[in-house]
Amino acid sequence: MTKAIVLVSGGLDSATILAMALRDGLACTAVSFDYDQRHRGELASATAVCRSMGVNDHRIVRIDPGPLSGSALTGGGDVPHPVDVDQIGGGIPDTYVPARNTVFLALSLAMAEGLGASELHIGANAVDYSGYPDCRPEFISAFDSLAQVATKAGVEGNPIRVKAPLLYMSKAEIITTGSQLGVDYGLTCSCYDPGEGSQPCGQCDACFLRAAGFAQAGVPDPLLEAST
Amino acid sequence: MTKAIVLVSGGLDSATILAMALRDGLACTAVSFDYDQRHRGELASATAVCRSMGVNDHRIVRIDPGPLSGSALTGGGDVPHPVDVDQIGGGIPDTYVPARNTVFLALSLAMAEGLGASELHIGANAVDYSGYPDCRPEFISAFDSLAQVATKAGVEGNPIRVKAPLLYMSKAEIITTGSQLGVDYGLTCSCYDPGEGSQPCGQCDACFLRAAGFAQAGVPDPLLEAST
Repeated sequence: MTKAIVLVSGGLDSATILAMALRDGLACTAVSFDYDQRHRGELASATAVCRSMGVNDHRIVRIDPGPLSGSALTGGGDVPHPVDVDQIGGGIPDTYVPARNTVFLALSLAMAEGLGASELHIGANAVDYSGYPDCRPEFISAFDSLAQVATKAGVEGNPIRVKAPLLYMSKAEIITTGSQLGVDYGLTCSCYDPGEGSQPCGQCDACFLRAAGFAQAGVPDPLLEAST
Repeated sequence: MTKAIVLVSGGLDSATILAMALRDGLACTAVSFDYDQRHRGELASATAVCRSMGVNDHRIVRIDPGPLSGSALTGGGDVPHPVDVDQIGGGIPDTYVPARNTVFLALSLAMAEGLGASELHIGANAVDYSGYPDCRPEFISAFDSLAQVATKAGVEGNPIRVKAPLLYMSKAEIITTGSQLGVDYGLTCSCYDPGEGSQPCGQCDACFLRAAGFAQAGVPDPLLEAST
């Protein structure tokens, strides 16, 4: 049985890849990262997502927040609230966290090698996304190349590969796929700046992209249904 | 003034690259990592090395030890004591820590971007070394390629580059270079399995490589001089 490390943030993209990996029969270890992010409530969502899919091996890895500072998501300023969804992805927003996916994948790579897992699954998406450099195909490809030379497993002919199954999918396609797999999107959270009781702000990039995705998929967002 | 992040472990290689970076006029931030390593005393050596060279900005970043477990250096077994120095580097030893340099460089990359540094300096060496996959030229090259697509700085045309100035140097050449730059190797520690008072065991790969390097350079090791 192939073992995979699945990066689960608590958002809808990673909930979908976890469901896809389980559909494909992989033995999944889920990993989430605690780096004092503003939207740290996403860790509870990640735990709920894992439980709902019967994934018992969910690890929360603490990251020293020092190196990741200097972002609106790590206390370095306000989360921007765009007025026009078409502006999203046109530049790198203030919510970019320096080298975040590099750090996440590096720690996941170490974990994979320790556990004998052969795949890392990440919900990076380069279609309906915020413009982060480390969600692009060239980043995923470069990390996959790195992983092949970075580890003992790679040198011994069993490299750990990076899988980003959502890379070229629209948000609507992701939601449609996940819905067909029974993902409970009511357990996920996407908002960068949630209020009391983890209510989405409805105004940040992530809220805009989520709303547009559900609208395009023709599916109601259970998170909003529940809050109204 | 070019800013650089210099990875300082407390060993002799990284002490040498710190001296070389200062010689080259770089504004250096030193970084060390605490991952509950068996030879955690190296962090005190790293601090002493930085102080001796007047580097005031020395940061110790904590890494959740979970992902890095499964090595003789992180509690996963005994440190091997080879009987023949020629055996060193012939395979990947039990002291290999999964994806360690990938994790170290990833966190350093994040830190560099936050601080506006344009270079990462690492003391990786592929000549007189223990055979770790993440000390080889192909690893350094792959991480450098990754860094160019992973960050906002890279996308904006100012990629953070990886420098490994010792990559093709013998241990003797490293020691000779550092000695000329006034590095006090008596402050460094190399041993994987130090005893009481941080005394080197004299029997692990790192002790063997260090001893052979000093012998070949024709320089006495001040660490041994002090202990006798």
